[in-house]
Amino acid sequence: MIQRPRGTRDFGPEEMEVRRHFEDMMRKEAALHGFREVATPIFEHTELFTLKSGPGVVEEIYAFQDKGGREICLRPELTASVMRFFISDLTNLPRPLKLFYFGQCFRYERPQAGRYREFFQFGAEIIGSPTPETDAEAIGLAAAILERTGLRDYRIRIGHIGILREMLARAGVSGDAALPILQRLDKKEYPEAEALMAQAGMGREAIDGVIATTQVTGPITVLDGVQGPAGAYIREVYDILQAMGFSNLSVDLGVVRGLAYYTGMVFEVDAPKLGAEKQICGGGSYSLSELFGGEKVFSTGFAIGFDRTLLAIQAEGVEFVRPGITAYVVPVTDSARMRAFQVVGMLRRAGVSADVDIMRRGVGKSLRYASSINAKYAVIVGEKELESDSVTLRDMASGEQSLVRAEELPKRLKE
Amino acid sequence: MIQRPRGTRDFGPEEMEVRRHFEDMMRKEAALHGFREVATPIFEHTELFTLKSGPGVVEEIYAFQDKGGREICLRPELTASVMRFFISDLTNLPRPLKLFYFGQCFRYERPQAGRYREFFQFGAEIIGSPTPETDAEAIGLAAAILERTGLRDYRIRIGHIGILREMLARAGVSGDAALPILQRLDKKEYPEAEALMAQAGMGREAIDGVIATTQVTGPITVLDGVQGPAGAYIREVYDILQAMGFSNLSVDLGVVRGLAYYTGMVFEVDAPKLGAEKQICGGGSYSLSELFGGEKVFSTGFAIGFDRTLLAIQAEGVEFVRPGITAYVVPVTDSARMRAFQVVGMLRRAGVSADVDIMRRGVGKSLRYASSINAKYAVIVGEKELESDSVTLRDMASGEQSLVRAEELPKRLKE
Repeated sequence: MIQRPRGTRDFGPEEMEVRRHFEDMMRKEAALHGFREVATPIFEHTELFTLKSGPGVVEEIYAFQDKGGREICLRPELTASVMRFFISDLTNLPRPLKLFYFGQCFRYERPQAGRYREFFQFGAEIIGSPTPETDAEAIGLAAAILERTGLRDYRIRIGHIGILREMLARAGVSGDAALPILQRLDKKEYPEAEALMAQAGMGREAIDGVIATTQVTGPITVLDGVQGPAGAYIREVYDILQAMGFSNLSVDLGVVRGLAYYTGMVFEVDAPKLGAEKQICGGGSYSLSELFGGEKVFSTGFAIGFDRTLLAIQAEGVEFVRPGITAYVVPVTDSARMRAFQVVGMLRRAGVSADVDIMRRGVGKSLRYASSINAKYAVIVGEKELESDSVTLRDMASGEQSLVRAEELPKRLKE
Repeated sequence: MIQRPRGTRDFGPEEMEVRRHFEDMMRKEAALHGFREVATPIFEHTELFTLKSGPGVVEEIYAFQDKGGREICLRPELTASVMRFFISDLTNLPRPLKLFYFGQCFRYERPQAGRYREFFQFGAEIIGSPTPETDAEAIGLAAAILERTGLRDYRIRIGHIGILREMLARAGVSGDAALPILQRLDKKEYPEAEALMAQAGMGREAIDGVIATTQVTGPITVLDGVQGPAGAYIREVYDILQAMGFSNLSVDLGVVRGLAYYTGMVFEVDAPKLGAEKQICGGGSYSLSELFGGEKVFSTGFAIGFDRTLLAIQAEGVEFVRPGITAYVVPVTDSARMRAFQVVGMLRRAGVSADVDIMRRGVGKSLRYASSINAKYAVIVGEKELESDSVTLRDMASGEQSLVRAEELPKRLKE
């Protein structure tokens, strides 16, 4: 027996119903917000991701050579691909450009609960606008999607990478030297971060100030003690989100996102029920296109981990109604068989979901199969029905039966 | 500037609207027919495809070693993956099992018009039922999908691999020896097929009979001259499809599909407007699961080439109405900005697609942007409107404006 590759999943019919339901919900919400979908290839030149995240990323991704000797890899995320696409083909579209995507991503790492080698991301990018409104609009889509799923136990934590960068710069640490410190802070590795700051020549007070700042979390009032333009900026983003009707918001200056291209607002969403792998969304404003050879453009984006969000939804027991099928058509005799196919063809054309016996089973077995596929009605076609151009409609839940003229069946089943 | 990998495509907003529209249409049609979706990983163990198609297939696919030394590849098609999944997890589900899938596939070959290295397939499989009804039900889904797309110029050609196999067997050529001959016949390479048949010891008359049979095409009446059970079988499939209301059907005994696991009915659909790469769908009944270590089960399936089908739809100029967006909200002054975000939040919650100025543009520029994104209405919020708790609603096509109470806006825009 051949196994599926390690760390990947197959999705059966029940699971796919749930997945497509929430995928469609996210897509519809994005469209409601004026975002439009784009798609890029499953694999990319590896260079795209080493430019964005450094050469170390190759260790964590599915990188290989194709038959032409090109270094390619399965995409580990989609922002880089969208920016590549933007630079090569979309720079002439009116701005702001509001894009979203949904698709598989891949990473080569030890599989564990909530972490797969093939996983799914929904994400969005707003390209070409540098205002707090832009950042609020991005967070607003993430918030609206989570709200729409019915999830309740989550919190949107908003920070600003500029606050820590500014503090480090004032203490004499800027640019590339700041990055490893920010990465340690992102991972809450405080002793390592402190050591790096000391090594960079920062004094005790400055170091303590940075550490204390990363621990500023809570309602918007925690910003009262924060000086400078970044604090005012977060406040503005926060106010717009409130105007749009979102709650579940808090400030968290410990949101760092340890990648060099983040420039200002950063945010994350946790679903605490998930335990260690609780982050279901992350994003911020960034400047990436110039890394790939494009002009410098302001962007804000985020990605939602689709798999983890589904886990969080399940953990909360959010209800999901399965679609099932409306009618299962059962020919009673061989002579009724062709008539059964006429009926099923007519129902489907009329937009009524319908299935039909294709295994020449008896009526009893057919009705059991109809139950097993959650059919709402059985449509029984026998000699009696053939003569009167009718069918027997059986409500599968109540067992009630009635004779219905065939031509009236689609209308009757659409009710 | 980093390029997308050769032979792959990026899809922009306009193209994705079309693609998702037709993808959803196919998915809905499959659900109407009682098929349920499954999904499998983008990559598989390479062995899955060498078992199915022979070791030569490695030359044509994206095969590589992962970091653990496993031979994996990007899937070139999805039937093998679905059967692998069936064997490992789905054998206990009630039968017939009617499954469908939609996703990317990959092959490493020289890119050319209508052939990409990353391409999309929609497909379906019916597992566990060996009747003509089963084959008709599979062809019926393909036919219904093509009908639903609005495509007009295509023909469904139905054959039966058993007819040629039987003729070859009667002439003393069976099993593995028959396969290379069938493969040549599949590619219409008649001189090569004739040479192979002669080499296998077949006489002139038997060879001519085989060649003549592959050229039997036309309406159902061409079967009148065909002996044996296979001819009667096709007739039955044909009759059921007619009962379900499908036309565009013909018989073509030249449909061979040169793979060892096809067992009976085979069919193809061409869209002649596409020229050389005109085949948009192909399938048949097959027996594959025992190759992968499962029990022997009857199956019928097909795949529709999604990209080529879209090309055919475009070539026929099938109309497509773009969704656009309902409302673009424009704050006239800075003090109206928060109110604009309240309005856009309210509209989106009510299910009205709405966007809002996030670039602090003037009214004229904002209205031009609203035009460029195909907004149906502009919703203008200024000082006058703030005072009366109203907005100015502007029909973007006619330019007509009217004052509307804010709370009535969602209802008004949902009409």
